[in-house]
Amino acid sequence: MGFVDLNCDLGESFGAYKIGMDNEILDYVTSANIACGFHAGDPSVMRKTVTLALEKGVQIGAHPGLPDLVGFGRRSMAISPQEAYDMVIYQVGALEAFVKAEGASMQHVKPHGALYNMAAKDPKLSEAIAEAIYAVDPELILFGLSGSQLTKAGEKVGLRVAHEVFSDRTYQIDGSLTSRKEPNALIIDKDKAFKQVLRMVKEGYVKTEQEKDIAIKADTICIHGDGKEALTFARDIRQGFQVENIVVQAIRTK
Amino acid sequence: MGFVDLNCDLGESFGAYKIGMDNEILDYVTSANIACGFHAGDPSVMRKTVTLALEKGVQIGAHPGLPDLVGFGRRSMAISPQEAYDMVIYQVGALEAFVKAEGASMQHVKPHGALYNMAAKDPKLSEAIAEAIYAVDPELILFGLSGSQLTKAGEKVGLRVAHEVFSDRTYQIDGSLTSRKEPNALIIDKDKAFKQVLRMVKEGYVKTEQEKDIAIKADTICIHGDGKEALTFARDIRQGFQVENIVVQAIRTK
Amino acid sequence: MGFVDLNCDLGESFGAYKIGMDNEILDYVTSANIACGFHAGDPSVMRKTVTLALEKGVQIGAHPGLPDLVGFGRRSMAISPQEAYDMVIYQVGALEAFVKAEGASMQHVKPHGALYNMAAKDPKLSEAIAEAIYAVDPELILFGLSGSQLTKAGEKVGLRVAHEVFSDRTYQIDGSLTSRKEPNALIIDKDKAFKQVLRMVKEGYVKTEQEKDIAIKADTICIHGDGKEALTFARDIRQGFQVENIVVQAIRTK
Amino acid sequence: MGFVDLNCDLGESFGAYKIGMDNEILDYVTSANIACGFHAGDPSVMRKTVTLALEKGVQIGAHPGLPDLVGFGRRSMAISPQEAYDMVIYQVGALEAFVKAEGASMQHVKPHGALYNMAAKDPKLSEAIAEAIYAVDPELILFGLSGSQLTKAGEKVGLRVAHEVFSDRTYQIDGSLTSRKEPNALIIDKDKAFKQVLRMVKEGYVKTEQEKDIAIKADTICIHGDGKEALTFARDIRQGFQVENIVVQAIRTK
Repeated sequence: MGFVDLNCDLGESFGAYKIGMDNEILDYVTSANIACGFHAGDPSVMRKTVTLALEKGVQIGAHPGLPDLVGFGRRSMAISPQEAYDMVIYQVGALEAFVKAEGASMQHVKPHGALYNMAAKDPKLSEAIAEAIYAVDPELILFGLSGSQLTKAGEKVGLRVAHEVFSDRTYQIDGSLTSRKEPNALIIDKDKAFKQVLRMVKEGYVKTEQEKDIAIKADTICIHGDGKEALTFARDIRQGFQVENIVVQAIRTK
Repeated sequence: MGFVDLNCDLGESFGAYKIGMDNEILDYVTSANIACGFHAGDPSVMRKTVTLALEKGVQIGAHPGLPDLVGFGRRSMAISPQEAYDMVIYQVGALEAFVKAEGASMQHVKPHGALYNMAAKDPKLSEAIAEAIYAVDPELILFGLSGSQLTKAGEKVGLRVAHEVFSDRTYQIDGSLTSRKEPNALIIDKDKAFKQVLRMVKEGYVKTEQEKDIAIKADTICIHGDGKEALTFARDIRQGFQVENIVVQAIRTK
Repeated sequence: MGFVDLNCDLGESFGAYKIGMDNEILDYVTSANIACGFHAGDPSVMRKTVTLALEKGVQIGAHPGLPDLVGFGRRSMAISPQEAYDMVIYQVGALEAFVKAEGASMQHVKPHGALYNMAAKDPKLSEAIAEAIYAVDPELILFGLSGSQLTKAGEKVGLRVAHEVFSDRTYQIDGSLTSRKEPNALIIDKDKAFKQVLRMVKEGYVKTEQEKDIAIKADTICIHGDGKEALTFARDIRQGFQVENIVVQAIRTK
Repeated sequence: MGFVDLNCDLGESFGAYKIGMDNEILDYVTSANIACGFHAGDPSVMRKTVTLALEKGVQIGAHPGLPDLVGFGRRSMAISPQEAYDMVIYQVGALEAFVKAEGASMQHVKPHGALYNMAAKDPKLSEAIAEAIYAVDPELILFGLSGSQLTKAGEKVGLRVAHEVFSDRTYQIDGSLTSRKEPNALIIDKDKAFKQVLRMVKEGYVKTEQEKDIAIKADTICIHGDGKEALTFARDIRQGFQVENIVVQAIRTK
């Protein structure tokens, strides 16, 4: 029997702008990464999303991003490690206050978008991020790309880390995701996507685009939260794991 | 023998922009209200200001403001009490994370500018602000205009409050500050300013613009932090209190 | 035979956030008020919306708002007339550049949300707005609440003005809209709404909440652009006017 | 006899924040690059700076930057050419409106900071920027690093370009500036700086860090606007050119 966590980006609405089907997707995932106002989210959205996650028994994490609302935090920016440290402290603290205000505690931190991708490859940036999280609360769990510089940095500073894998993305022989600019970056076939993720969870291997198996840790799976298809896939992946005797539960409850 | 706290707004720089003489003024005040990124301040400025205040043994407070950087939080905005609650939680949490990261704890919260002034008169807004602070940490002390709706709301929700007075502003018979639009709003004469504040601290009275005394609580005095004159006045007020046997110390150390 | 213009707020999306059914509603309206990046919109959305409006032969106007993205420009702010002047120049210029880049010219300016409402009642604010528009281009037409301080200010500074009326809002005896906080602010019944607006266009009168007729000029009608019902109403109002021999056409083409 | 333009970044203040000695430096330069609200500047600062430049007879240019106020537009961002096009149109239009409102016309556009540096090396980004400027007004002059991709792109789309050189930066053999991360990036000695720039203007050559001369066009010189030393250098360079019979005048007046 194995275990796996399902995480999803949530609380990405902003003011009058709505994104995501937070209420629905919270029925399927076990960890919620809540935007903190830099790339998405605002104080009111944060409060509502925290409340909703708690009602549904879903663990809460901060989802800090780059200060780029118009780009949704998806555009790389040449920030220094010190700036990364500072913006992670700020955003984690802001979300933590909403969680504390509801009498609960936060489980994890997962950097968003370009910050996540930059950190996956940059040891100095990753270490700054990990140190920021540790400084705010050493019990927080760092979610990062499986086997990347980010999870390595988390382990180095003494944080518990969760290795994240993707069901709908193909992998390169070095464990990185195939760039979205490449034709085979995405796995469209839902069966194929589930089989890839099931094998990662059960066996700890994934077949890369180079047709070679590599070892991969799969503590948590990234689930998309927008669109009907995403909801269907979230439900199906959850049922699929049940059939396979994989227990779906939040990282820190294991 | 009496006690009084001296507080000052700090950490108001932003990116390449510098405001205030934080390093110098921290030698004279006992409580620092640090901007939280909405009306002034940014994550890096917040970290540096927290570190500086701790080095100088000055107590730290969050200084949440309206989301109006270009207006420096000085323009009233028609926000709802719920929005006030949410933006206070967010900003207090963000600053608290920097304080925690340095192994310290926060003393107080003082709303900034238009938020402070709106709250002084609006019981619903004040109650939302007080509840936000209480929800994040019931030990935090709320700084508000002496005798205003804000201090009343703090007391109502169970927070310890510090009644704030101004040395360089004249008072109305209802205890409010004379509007800056009026000719006699400011006390320019430094001796007169010190005498007013000394009387508030020692006797608990202030003479209003209507030439009548009113009772006023003076737990903490607002000190300005920009300009050489401000520094001189801060030093003089501190020495003046020493001569008068008034102990200048941070609120929570009393 | 009469004439009337139908205007709608458009280009309110922002980055990854989508609002409104711009493509559909442009088939029914004759004037598009395009957000300019302060309360909604971003440079890419502005370019796309300008292009779309031009393709559909709809006249373009700038829709400047308060600098309050999270509040969608709907929260009053205590800005000075000078600040209003400056922010209108800025936003009108930004939109005009996109229109010029496509080889076209702009028809009008309509302030948004709280700026529109504040201006309707405040002669100084209105005059600053009208002067800003005139300074950028005296040929621009100012859209403002019919008979309000804003249209008065436009006329005073020498701008052509378009008096705007609402089909789905009730009126007070002084010509102002019934506040949304009042129970009878909105006209839900579509027939009743059309009848009100038809009478305003044909006869120049509206029956107020005080059950008394007042004179009202109706040069342009505000049409909502979000939701299926809005689309249906836009189509119906357009057909209704055709039946009544009211020509629906953009202000400056008359 | 030769000609040269002196340009300086201006209007970089923001709200309560002051940067630069705009009033003083305008006595020495012939072209003012005015920030447009993305990396620095706000509508009120833009208006004041435009007015001041016109009073002093200095030509005005837009200085569009990346949307990164906290980073002052100095951090590279992975924006697309389309996004660059859009943000340049927006900012150029915003500034142009202030210039038009004063009855004047704009001379040039110079991208700021990271946008300038990215464009110097990236032909697609440069072409997008040049096309944006051309679309708004084909008479505008593009200021770019001498001999870079940006000036090439300007020439390609049909804009008049001004090749910019730096007095206080050393050059590489490919005509690029030595990176600020390198020890010899800056020329501290004011005489040496003036000699370098004089030779560029008079002879069209500069000695690179590799001790080899390269040809370089010097239409305009970047002057810094902050600090007393900058003012002194601006005055000295202007006097130095006079002695050498080089006429200092704005590009479009030549």
